[in-house]
Amino acid sequence: MADADPPADAFDRLRLIRTTGVGPVTYRQLLRRFGSARAALEALPDLAKRGGGRAAAPADPKVIAREIETVASLGARHLFLDDPAYPALLAQLDDAPAVLTVRGALPDAVRPAVAMVGARNASAAACRFARGLAHDLAAEGATVISGLARGIDTAAHMGAGAATVAVIAGGIDVAYPPENAALQERIAQEALLIAEMPPGTEPRARHFPYRNRIIAGLAQGTVVVEAAPKSGSLITARLANEAGREVMAVPGSPLDPRAQGCNLLIREGATLIQTAADVLEQVRPFDARLVRAPVSPYEPQPPADADDAARRVVTALLGPVPVPVDEVIRQSAAPPAVVQMVLLELELAGRLERHAGGRVSLVA
Amino acid sequence: MADADPPADAFDRLRLIRTTGVGPVTYRQLLRRFGSARAALEALPDLAKRGGGRAAAPADPKVIAREIETVASLGARHLFLDDPAYPALLAQLDDAPAVLTVRGALPDAVRPAVAMVGARNASAAACRFARGLAHDLAAEGATVISGLARGIDTAAHMGAGAATVAVIAGGIDVAYPPENAALQERIAQEALLIAEMPPGTEPRARHFPYRNRIIAGLAQGTVVVEAAPKSGSLITARLANEAGREVMAVPGSPLDPRAQGCNLLIREGATLIQTAADVLEQVRPFDARLVRAPVSPYEPQPPADADDAARRVVTALLGPVPVPVDEVIRQSAAPPAVVQMVLLELELAGRLERHAGGRVSLVA
Repeated sequence: MADADPPADAFDRLRLIRTTGVGPVTYRQLLRRFGSARAALEALPDLAKRGGGRAAAPADPKVIAREIETVASLGARHLFLDDPAYPALLAQLDDAPAVLTVRGALPDAVRPAVAMVGARNASAAACRFARGLAHDLAAEGATVISGLARGIDTAAHMGAGAATVAVIAGGIDVAYPPENAALQERIAQEALLIAEMPPGTEPRARHFPYRNRIIAGLAQGTVVVEAAPKSGSLITARLANEAGREVMAVPGSPLDPRAQGCNLLIREGATLIQTAADVLEQVRPFDARLVRAPVSPYEPQPPADADDAARRVVTALLGPVPVPVDEVIRQSAAPPAVVQMVLLELELAGRLERHAGGRVSLVA
Repeated sequence: MADADPPADAFDRLRLIRTTGVGPVTYRQLLRRFGSARAALEALPDLAKRGGGRAAAPADPKVIAREIETVASLGARHLFLDDPAYPALLAQLDDAPAVLTVRGALPDAVRPAVAMVGARNASAAACRFARGLAHDLAAEGATVISGLARGIDTAAHMGAGAATVAVIAGGIDVAYPPENAALQERIAQEALLIAEMPPGTEPRARHFPYRNRIIAGLAQGTVVVEAAPKSGSLITARLANEAGREVMAVPGSPLDPRAQGCNLLIREGATLIQTAADVLEQVRPFDARLVRAPVSPYEPQPPADADDAARRVVTALLGPVPVPVDEVIRQSAAPPAVVQMVLLELELAGRLERHAGGRVSLVA
């Protein structure tokens, strides 16, 4: 599918999403509530004040202009959530990135999409297995998605050849890890490289869970190959499960500590897989979600301003422990749009944090 | 529980079960139909004739007398299915052995009972794992049941120490495999050794599936450690499943051919286990089936003689492919007792074969 022209207000949209405190969920709610990025930018100070704080200044227009130039000079482009070329599976996440920076060609939407993740310090045998599995999946027409990390990720990208998508935690122009610079460049030229953070961003620990949700979100199913308990790979598996995608794991001996994470996943219900055929049995080639025209995530929402009573009720229901927004709506007995508006105000005031799975907490 | 005295008609019962063509299912039906082993022995020629053949001669009384002497001289004893000391879980199988030869002490009935089986040519790592798992299970109060074969079986018995039961395919006095002679003797003295075949029987290939049903039947659950596809261990797992017991398997790398059988079992629904705690989670320590007083398997059955019409209908439903007896009963629309009688006649005539899972076929 050809990319659409960038939206007329691409500049304002970028400025809004690059504003401190505006994540993908908030961004989407602001666009729905105010109808345009410009109107949302203008409303920020007032919203934050009602939330009991001060809004961060909107992103500097000079920084945004420089980002647009840099992206163009890299042969990359911005892909907004409502672009018809935006990957349909990813668009289904509640916290789908508002804009991606991409280099390369988007894979045919009807190809089965499989994420492969695993340990950076994986055994040589596991890397060999991952490479072979990715090769076989690509040969069967699947796209293999991974994160360009050392170990299993690298093996997956190498095995899949041109049938791969790499999602990186930093900016599109930042090679990480350094030894994968050539692989990253090759994937950008022959396949597809995706970044959510703006160019120039050095990847930090906090970026990796966001990167992981994109890997899981792009795929019908995630295969974990050799992972320790409490590793990032298991976070990706959890995100895949929360997004309603298949979770698969490659087993290993109980005597091998590096197999513990995968064996635990299988005990918890992940499908044990040994071959590409096992994987393809789980991710059906004709998945309606792959080709469904995405509904516009920016359907206008009727104004629903909160009053002080609603603010008191909602704030009282929140605490330092993350709770699902749905739960807050139910317990508050207030209209959902009002609760969302209170949360928006609190977030823009720097008092609310959003977590995976649609959960929120007060900043301690 | 103390053993009961041998039944008054132990001699006749042994003679009936040792008669060619009389397996445990047939034996039970004969006792129920004719009320005593002696009456059943007398009825054999007539039954076989109605089934269209000739009955094998009842076992030679001299051979039976010698078996009783041998068993006594070995410090062993016969344990009949209706003995209160007969293991309650095993007694629940449709084809529970009519009589066992045992040496040693029956384990406390309320101990969790776990079967462990696996490859004869298992890797050193898997044998070490099996030994450790059996040790941990015994330390937690479980009894570990296995088959005294090379590899995993041997490791399981060694790890479990005195908290073990060995079930052998040949006679109680036949050491097999030869290198396990000392282990077999130690288990008979310190734990429990069980044989279904009469003393002096050399184990043959056909005996092993019968042995496997006893291993699976004695246990609440069966753990498979390293097994090739289509191996005897997977047969034991299937028998355990058919008997309504838990099936558990230890995973391994897909690159290790010896892990294929276990990984397949897990894909098919067996529980992946890595530790004794994982196993004990599956086999509850307070399983009512362990202590339930067995109902007498020899409840008299009202006479239900078959007529030629029933014989024709039932025989027409049978072929060389094994079918469940329940299916034959349903399709014949004849009273179950009549169908069972026709099958009994055919079997005694040498025209019918019984298979695991209550299935029967005509002898080709």
